[in-house]
Amino acid sequence: MSLKTASRVLNGEPNVATATRERVQDAAASLGFRRNAVAADLARGGLSRLVGFITGDLANEFYSALASGIERELREHGLQLLTASSDEDPEREASLTGELIERRVGALIVTPAGADHSALRGEIAAGLPVVVVDRPAAGMDADTVVIDNRGGTRAAVAHLLAHGHRRIAFVGDEPHLWTYQERSDEFLAALREAGVADAERWVRSGAHDAAAARDLVLELLAAPEPPTAILAANNRATVGTLQALRDTPGGDQVAVVGFDDFELADLLGITVVAYDAVEMGRRAAELAVARSADPDRTVEQVVLPTRVVPRGSGERPPR
Amino acid sequence: MSLKTASRVLNGEPNVATATRERVQDAAASLGFRRNAVAADLARGGLSRLVGFITGDLANEFYSALASGIERELREHGLQLLTASSDEDPEREASLTGELIERRVGALIVTPAGADHSALRGEIAAGLPVVVVDRPAAGMDADTVVIDNRGGTRAAVAHLLAHGHRRIAFVGDEPHLWTYQERSDEFLAALREAGVADAERWVRSGAHDAAAARDLVLELLAAPEPPTAILAANNRATVGTLQALRDTPGGDQVAVVGFDDFELADLLGITVVAYDAVEMGRRAAELAVARSADPDRTVEQVVLPTRVVPRGSGERPPR
Repeated sequence: MSLKTASRVLNGEPNVATATRERVQDAAASLGFRRNAVAADLARGGLSRLVGFITGDLANEFYSALASGIERELREHGLQLLTASSDEDPEREASLTGELIERRVGALIVTPAGADHSALRGEIAAGLPVVVVDRPAAGMDADTVVIDNRGGTRAAVAHLLAHGHRRIAFVGDEPHLWTYQERSDEFLAALREAGVADAERWVRSGAHDAAAARDLVLELLAAPEPPTAILAANNRATVGTLQALRDTPGGDQVAVVGFDDFELADLLGITVVAYDAVEMGRRAAELAVARSADPDRTVEQVVLPTRVVPRGSGERPPR
Repeated sequence: MSLKTASRVLNGEPNVATATRERVQDAAASLGFRRNAVAADLARGGLSRLVGFITGDLANEFYSALASGIERELREHGLQLLTASSDEDPEREASLTGELIERRVGALIVTPAGADHSALRGEIAAGLPVVVVDRPAAGMDADTVVIDNRGGTRAAVAHLLAHGHRRIAFVGDEPHLWTYQERSDEFLAALREAGVADAERWVRSGAHDAAAARDLVLELLAAPEPPTAILAANNRATVGTLQALRDTPGGDQVAVVGFDDFELADLLGITVVAYDAVEMGRRAAELAVARSADPDRTVEQVVLPTRVVPRGSGERPPR
């Protein structure tokens, strides 16, 4: 039997004898092959209908907003999103990249977990559209969507300074994360410029979940010289901070600004550094689609603005 | 060239002439085939490392908790989760089912969006492990994990009745959803048994997002005879209800019980019908793994318990 006959069978073309058809299908199945419509489309120059998104944490509201923005934009183009979580683990990120590519996703959107992006670099070189979002992938020439972390941090510090605070604590995520570094660096720089020399004393990291943040803040508030204000450097840190303040006498007098807006921040009166996470996802998807259409277009680095939204918690004066 | 030779090439076996190897590889590529390691594993009797989860709404905290429970359990077995959203659209659910199966997921976990599950039924018949979660798939003999919706609703109504309420409103999701039907039916039955004959007057549906819920509650509260208590029948309805109460004079006197716990309910003092959504996901994943290992095992229907968690909002007396 010729490969041509096999092709006709597997592409579902008519006029093949039933016995031949069955022989080809059995052989293909025993080889572990299965007709892959998407791969067939690609071979014909088409685009896979699926786009992969490797997120850092499925349970975090920020990533949910990002994913829904990505999905909304993809749908406009008749594409479908598949999401998988690296759980911030670089090894899982690399293995997921492989799994998704093996399954012929047409493009990949990634929040890079680690510093080693060799898996992604290889795929970009091989022609796969890859967009990184929330954090840049160091040393990689990829389309990128991030927010203005430094501008948002500076605005938050300025807001607290303007309300009279000098003893301001910073409660942040894992220190190896790019966003942590950007935000903590700018926090220290802004305070140094304002003449607060020892701001490092109140910088804490490790608040990757609310419980960890809560413990860090309880400890800060129990110190001989507690902070009068807290910059909670992500939405997890903000929730933990609020829990710690509720459980500390006088905690309701401590000023709080949270990085990342969240749905109930409005009801709770929490001042935040806000940005449009859905738009962030939408832009990432837009770049993935544009890169698919034109592999040679100039690499884009999109930086979305942030703004302080005052709602009460960030406007309390120092005790 | 025989299919046997093609098999040897595509499985990467040695001792094939280079020219033959290239001919087979080119032919395979032009046919739209690509060596699929997972499909090959399956053909050899192994299990794909990927499990698909078709969720209803990526941005809803309930689905995030479900997904993280699924993922946690899968990881124990060396498996990886791929999530896609049907956006509660039965057509998208069917097309996603096809896309995921074509990509050789080893099992599928689905929150069924519609009433037609022919796509899923076919796959179960073909041997794919399928678990449905949150809602049963009518007429389908599949492993299922749901919560005790009726028990939770009855407990919430009993709680509000015990605190003196008779004019209790029900603010629910889309009426075609099974969870809506279970909860609203039981709501009406419980009130009827308590001698409240006209409870239908205060039943509202369509609160699939917080904004819609807010509008429904504002309308209820503006009526000549407003409810003194509200059962918000899911987490979206609860957020919208809280927004409406904040924006209504005297709204802080209306009792509220929310179905679904949420992270900040504790800080906000909201009484809820709680259950373990992470555990729900974990059980679904466990069933998928068990079904993969033993396709002939008895179909399981797991019902997880619910409980009322009093936090203040559900204990206010009628005005």
